[in-house]
Amino acid sequence: MKIAHLFENAFKDNAPSITVVHESEFVKVLNFNFKAGQGLPLHSHNIEGELVLTILEGQGEFLSTDGKVPAKPGDTLICPIATRHGVGAVTDLRVLVTIAPPI
Amino acid sequence: MKIAHLFENAFKDNAPSITVVHESEFVKVLNFNFKAGQGLPLHSHNIEGELVLTILEGQGEFLSTDGKVPAKPGDTLICPIATRHGVGAVTDLRVLVTIAPPI
Repeated sequence: MKIAHLFENAFKDNAPSITVVHESEFVKVLNFNFKAGQGLPLHSHNIEGELVLTILEGQGEFLSTDGKVPAKPGDTLICPIATRHGVGAVTDLRVLVTIAPPI
Repeated sequence: MKIAHLFENAFKDNAPSITVVHESEFVKVLNFNFKAGQGLPLHSHNIEGELVLTILEGQGEFLSTDGKVPAKPGDTLICPIATRHGVGAVTDLRVLVTIAPPI
């Protein structure tokens, strides 16, 4: 059993801050912290599996090929990893990223 | 692609409120909302896989065979599903539960 305190993870001025919280044969758990204005542009990975993005703190946007939708705490995006997706931070933004099976 | 707004999910007076956010061959995503004083006592499932519990809102406790530890937003517990685990709500508590592979 492991307990992580994600809100202790820092932000970085020049790029998103990425913390690997957990990695196993079953699942990969990451914490992305984006300063306001940072983000991950639309991208995808040509592999099998799914991605779960949950906003933990802050205001942002989920990006898809359909455009942008506002994202606030508790909002959760789920999609195949092979589907183009992205995130943008309007304010400083903490995001939980879960990938199963892990990549 | 699916977007869920977990903070719109209700609480229930008489029992934890459980919402299935997503279920696929890869992962199961649930949202448990506990009113203050509610919880899930120590339990386990005798199957393979891992569990990720993340506090989205409120104050609570993670339970293990070692006892209780305080749990606040951003705190994340990761363990095999076969390891005894539980959650208690000190205030109204929103928890994201991810299980991979799904049960």
